[in-house]
Amino acid sequence: MSGILSGISAVSIEGSVTTPKGFRAAGVACGIKASGLDLALIVSDTDASAAGVFTINRAQAAPVTVSRRNLSVSSGRARAIVVNSGCANACTGIEGMRHAEAMAVRTASSVGCSVPDVLVASTGVIGVKLDMEKVARGITAAAAALAPSGGEDAARAIMTTDPFPKSASAEIATGAGSFRVGGIAKGSGMIEPNMATMLAFLTTDAGVEPALLQRALKAVVNDTFNAITVDGECSTNDCVLVLANGASGVHFGEEDYPVLVDGLRQVCEPLAIGIVRGGEGATKLVTVRVTGAVSDAEARQAARAIANSPLVKTAIHGGDPNWGRLVAVAGRSGSSFVLDSAAVRIGPIELFSEGTPHDERAAEAAEYLKGSDLVVAVDMGTRGSGTSQMWTCDLSAEYVRINAEYRT
Amino acid sequence: MSGILSGISAVSIEGSVTTPKGFRAAGVACGIKASGLDLALIVSDTDASAAGVFTINRAQAAPVTVSRRNLSVSSGRARAIVVNSGCANACTGIEGMRHAEAMAVRTASSVGCSVPDVLVASTGVIGVKLDMEKVARGITAAAAALAPSGGEDAARAIMTTDPFPKSASAEIATGAGSFRVGGIAKGSGMIEPNMATMLAFLTTDAGVEPALLQRALKAVVNDTFNAITVDGECSTNDCVLVLANGASGVHFGEEDYPVLVDGLRQVCEPLAIGIVRGGEGATKLVTVRVTGAVSDAEARQAARAIANSPLVKTAIHGGDPNWGRLVAVAGRSGSSFVLDSAAVRIGPIELFSEGTPHDERAAEAAEYLKGSDLVVAVDMGTRGSGTSQMWTCDLSAEYVRINAEYRT
Repeated sequence: MSGILSGISAVSIEGSVTTPKGFRAAGVACGIKASGLDLALIVSDTDASAAGVFTINRAQAAPVTVSRRNLSVSSGRARAIVVNSGCANACTGIEGMRHAEAMAVRTASSVGCSVPDVLVASTGVIGVKLDMEKVARGITAAAAALAPSGGEDAARAIMTTDPFPKSASAEIATGAGSFRVGGIAKGSGMIEPNMATMLAFLTTDAGVEPALLQRALKAVVNDTFNAITVDGECSTNDCVLVLANGASGVHFGEEDYPVLVDGLRQVCEPLAIGIVRGGEGATKLVTVRVTGAVSDAEARQAARAIANSPLVKTAIHGGDPNWGRLVAVAGRSGSSFVLDSAAVRIGPIELFSEGTPHDERAAEAAEYLKGSDLVVAVDMGTRGSGTSQMWTCDLSAEYVRINAEYRT
Repeated sequence: MSGILSGISAVSIEGSVTTPKGFRAAGVACGIKASGLDLALIVSDTDASAAGVFTINRAQAAPVTVSRRNLSVSSGRARAIVVNSGCANACTGIEGMRHAEAMAVRTASSVGCSVPDVLVASTGVIGVKLDMEKVARGITAAAAALAPSGGEDAARAIMTTDPFPKSASAEIATGAGSFRVGGIAKGSGMIEPNMATMLAFLTTDAGVEPALLQRALKAVVNDTFNAITVDGECSTNDCVLVLANGASGVHFGEEDYPVLVDGLRQVCEPLAIGIVRGGEGATKLVTVRVTGAVSDAEARQAARAIANSPLVKTAIHGGDPNWGRLVAVAGRSGSSFVLDSAAVRIGPIELFSEGTPHDERAAEAAEYLKGSDLVVAVDMGTRGSGTSQMWTCDLSAEYVRINAEYRT
């Protein structure tokens, strides 16, 4: 057993992207948004391994294209992440590409690294061009403001209409020493324009080769950022990026993979849940658990259908323990479902099992649904071992109000 | 060319399931619902070919199971359709199966046909048992009330919280004589319980073998009832049934298939659109057209994603010509999408094309969106010939209010 694998304990600590050693960050206001911080910079003091997971939307924004390419050109190395809010630089054609590239060039010269070592992200209105004069001024100011205490400002600078900034960090003790992971995220809350862009930026002072880092990031994103939904949309700009600079002295090998995954998860899970809590019009956080599916993939498919169902989300909003909607959505999800051995639980209360409703428990379940942190669970009845967990929020009239408001 | 294929003209006429020759119907109140008609009976005077398209939900209600089986046992022949509203007889276990079978038995003896010649449907609350005493009384009363003018009562008796009854009929003149098609439907509007069950029952006095009838029904349902969405849900009880009794004297052969499809479509399209107009909280009917996709299947996939997108539906509700949301949903739909040659139109107004926004036309598009019958069109930019059309409605705060209300 390697040193890293022995004697592990992970604890969440107060912190952000600058909590791991050797990172500085800043958030500044450069006028892209009418008010507030709107440009964030995260920099590793030394060369770092880098990895990214990007939107699968085929209407991919320019900064996504540039970051993908830079990651590839640099063979998974990076020094800096630059992000603006207020303008998504999406659907902006050739000029949008030039603007995203210019953000990387300007950041590279301000920070003192090569251009492919810069990753770029944008969030905000679709179809509007970046004001590059403002962005250039912002990058210069952010580079000057970089500090080991700048994580919280960076978290604020990537917000659009998020109701609160989202930061998290964790310290993981191993037999080979301790390392830290930090992160910031922004979520769903963009009344101005378009999609609810999800961005997350992670840092760690662990030492990891790019390929292993990419594999771990993908696995963790699948169970965290890809396991949340507010309204089932996937934006043109979504991305999750991680930098690993090795400053802790703890170096990961292939055999330590589970510890790396667990460390990233310590930060990604609270950030992901924070995005749901801050979802548009959300008043309740709902954990959807599916068991008894033929496979984990089928369980995920059913969990996703439930988590996105407007009928389920409105019932929860109204405090209605409507197990029939859960049965019906599980049944139409496309995953195998055996009604006669299926079960539905709302919190600890079983409302349907073995083909039989238990409506006498409805009042108890309605009482449970008055809470703001809820669990709904469906057993698919196949006797299979597939399970999945997703997080969603309720659907409120406020969601409709926010999203029906005219842009201009 | 056969007589049927020559000289065709189809006209919509005022009417219902009893407009074709040789059909009688009734709608009665038997007390399953607190008030109003709640049991419908549709009977062909002579043996008829029959076909059905059923929910793909795996939590299939008992009446769906019984109707499927009866259609199979009778080799696609039927005399009667019996339907109750107010109780879906879903998630009711073995007893539910017995109840659905008892509905068929009671109807067969009241009408004077064999049990497999009866098709059964239910709509209403999930997880509640049918009161068979009331149902039996209702079937007896409906059989006594059967009349060639009973179609409108039948249309009313299958409603749950539909805001209005939905009937349609058409007369198709061919070189071999005229035939008629009639239909009734109920849609989405079930505040009490669970899913928005979609039921439609069609009649025609054309003579058609069961296999040809089934093929035509499936094709027409695909472009009509399967091309509508209110909230993307698919219920435990959805079904579309058709009886064809040949009373017009116009008999269809394989070569006349296109005329049969067209005849059924004349009735199914207005019924399907009627369901969307009566959708929960709907204030606008929206036709979603997708062109330029790699295939019709990919076009349908993109159209479905757009028609179900809460961000698109809320934007339309708010009168916001938000082309960015249409681009982003088309891009995440899973269908091929080429941003640089894609286009978005809201009504006649092109807001995005060749990678370029035309926001100067936004005010004009906002004016157009004040209407209640709207078209939004997306070209996927692949230069392919795949097209699809779907109908949906806007998403209003009223939808949330209706569906968040507690059942009890």
